[in-house]
Amino acid sequence: MTEIAKGLAGVKFTESKLTFINGEEGILLHLGIPIQEWAENSTFEELSLALLEGKLPTATELAQFDAHLKENRAIPQQLQQVIQDMPRGINPMQALRTAVSYLGLLDPQSEDITPEARRAITVRLIAQFSTIIAAISRTQEGQEMVAPRMDLTHAGNFLYMLTGTEPTAEQSRLFDIALVLHVDHAMNASTFTAIATSSTLSDMYSCITSAIGALKGPLHGGANEAVMDMLDEVGTPDKAEAYIGKKLDNKEKIMGVGHRVYKNFDPRSRVLRDYAEHVANKEGKSNYYQILETIEKTVVDRLGDKGIYPNVDFYSGTVYSDLGIKKEFFTPIFALARISGWCASVIEYSQDNSLLRPSSVYTGEKDAHYVKLQDRK
Amino acid sequence: MTEIAKGLAGVKFTESKLTFINGEEGILLHLGIPIQEWAENSTFEELSLALLEGKLPTATELAQFDAHLKENRAIPQQLQQVIQDMPRGINPMQALRTAVSYLGLLDPQSEDITPEARRAITVRLIAQFSTIIAAISRTQEGQEMVAPRMDLTHAGNFLYMLTGTEPTAEQSRLFDIALVLHVDHAMNASTFTAIATSSTLSDMYSCITSAIGALKGPLHGGANEAVMDMLDEVGTPDKAEAYIGKKLDNKEKIMGVGHRVYKNFDPRSRVLRDYAEHVANKEGKSNYYQILETIEKTVVDRLGDKGIYPNVDFYSGTVYSDLGIKKEFFTPIFALARISGWCASVIEYSQDNSLLRPSSVYTGEKDAHYVKLQDRK
Repeated sequence: MTEIAKGLAGVKFTESKLTFINGEEGILLHLGIPIQEWAENSTFEELSLALLEGKLPTATELAQFDAHLKENRAIPQQLQQVIQDMPRGINPMQALRTAVSYLGLLDPQSEDITPEARRAITVRLIAQFSTIIAAISRTQEGQEMVAPRMDLTHAGNFLYMLTGTEPTAEQSRLFDIALVLHVDHAMNASTFTAIATSSTLSDMYSCITSAIGALKGPLHGGANEAVMDMLDEVGTPDKAEAYIGKKLDNKEKIMGVGHRVYKNFDPRSRVLRDYAEHVANKEGKSNYYQILETIEKTVVDRLGDKGIYPNVDFYSGTVYSDLGIKKEFFTPIFALARISGWCASVIEYSQDNSLLRPSSVYTGEKDAHYVKLQDRK
Repeated sequence: MTEIAKGLAGVKFTESKLTFINGEEGILLHLGIPIQEWAENSTFEELSLALLEGKLPTATELAQFDAHLKENRAIPQQLQQVIQDMPRGINPMQALRTAVSYLGLLDPQSEDITPEARRAITVRLIAQFSTIIAAISRTQEGQEMVAPRMDLTHAGNFLYMLTGTEPTAEQSRLFDIALVLHVDHAMNASTFTAIATSSTLSDMYSCITSAIGALKGPLHGGANEAVMDMLDEVGTPDKAEAYIGKKLDNKEKIMGVGHRVYKNFDPRSRVLRDYAEHVANKEGKSNYYQILETIEKTVVDRLGDKGIYPNVDFYSGTVYSDLGIKKEFFTPIFALARISGWCASVIEYSQDNSLLRPSSVYTGEKDAHYVKLQDRK
């Protein structure tokens, strides 16, 4: 009997120096540095550059990278028109996949797969993902697109382009932390799909459209949207305790609680929780935030000793909602952060490329023959 | 030391009843039936339906499928406009990836991943791939698109839409055979990428845009284009023997000769060779065909006893060129055939889905700390 590695679970196919995860101990490192330190001290821009270059940048390198990102924030007029002309009511991840694929048509460098070209394309992709996602949200709502501003951070500018209003410093920082927490997570399904595409020596735009397609699936990108569905179902803070209590009594699954990888706690969730609390205390607690607090308390009281805690999706959904992001856009926001991890992983893999070609086990007939149409029953 | 399955070589991750390959003996079976029998008796339409349903269809089922394909040949006006407005000089696989992604925005069923919906979407994708590829070729050449005709076969209609001229019966049949030979080839890189995307429970359009992106890479889809580059380099039939003789003397690689999987002969190449010869004898031998004949004779004479023969890419390039297809469109033609294999494979895998998530081995530092920007050297 042939052994089948279902889901490729436990199969190791490459080396990487980007991200280390120890799920038992709740450890997540990028370039060996704990995620907590990145979240506390760094920015989305810096972590992106660090992963691309494999080291902490100097002040000059970071300033240069930041300037390149800003220069590339605007998207081509023709792509604006394509986004404007998309039908209404579409899935935003389908829109993002299409817009990024179209961007490849407009980039004269798109067929160049040298490491230098891949890096240059990555800068444009990171910068323009933000503008594309905001443009999709605006046009789908029947609003005018908002042109990027060059005096805001990557996180702050995105919120500005999305809502048309300049965010507070706390809001920008909270969103920046959320992005930092989602930049990379080792060999997840979308990163793997990007690498599979890259392994035929295909171009960056093909790799990233593949990754968007994979992230779109509910088994991968949709978890924090499901948390918001739950908060909407609860309705008001006073009903939260009874709602969750009943779920726990019936041993039903609670969205945003526990994690496939992190068996104890998710290090990202603590960071996001603490900063979200800081902002809520300063700017007022939203309805969602109050429901969240009650659910968290109930879950930790009743399941905490089993090592089951709220995960990062539990907090990110509420944070995004309170920042004015609709839940249909949570997965595109995930992509907004993960684009850096995808590109860094593709560039790293392509330095020692090997065509990905696993096998299937044939279980069908081997001795059949074609039967003429008139002789079939 | 951790074992790494580079390129996932030899790793089996799922079962399949679609296609069996024995490279040593030169065997390729679909549903247990040899590829030679499919090529001789069947059509692209029938093989596509057979793979989708896992059995030879009845006459009624095939007629119904054929009618559905024909009904769906036309592409939406809005997509025609998007293709028309694409910049000139683009890579046609980037154009195909973008057009198919856009098609997903226009399909109200696109988010439905039930097997029934996936089948219905597959019919539309198969039918519209043909129209999209022809439309890209025409508009990129500055020509008007040609509307599909309902009285022609899938193969014949494609050639008609591409060239604006109705092909002869022999030309249609030759192209149909070429499509049949390329419908599926077990777990190749593009099929695998489609499955990886599907494994997150993403939609069909995401799976197929991923597959197009993977096929686009020169390690996968570009082989017959390389054969044509060689024929162009040879120039005229009288120079072919000396050209190849020199390559063989210098032990240089000859494009389209030998195959990674087929160690003896490629069963598809014999079928295509024989029918191409039939058409050449009837309609006249092109310059390319005459060069091909000479190269084949030289290669078989000098390498045949080592089990190294021309592969299917060797013949398909010449066949496509003689049918009026430019070499930049050989990879889209590959996609035109493989769309059926991609969709059938995704549908089969989704019946017992498992999220694909292999691992990488972390080889970086584990004990680093964030250093403040001003403290970095």
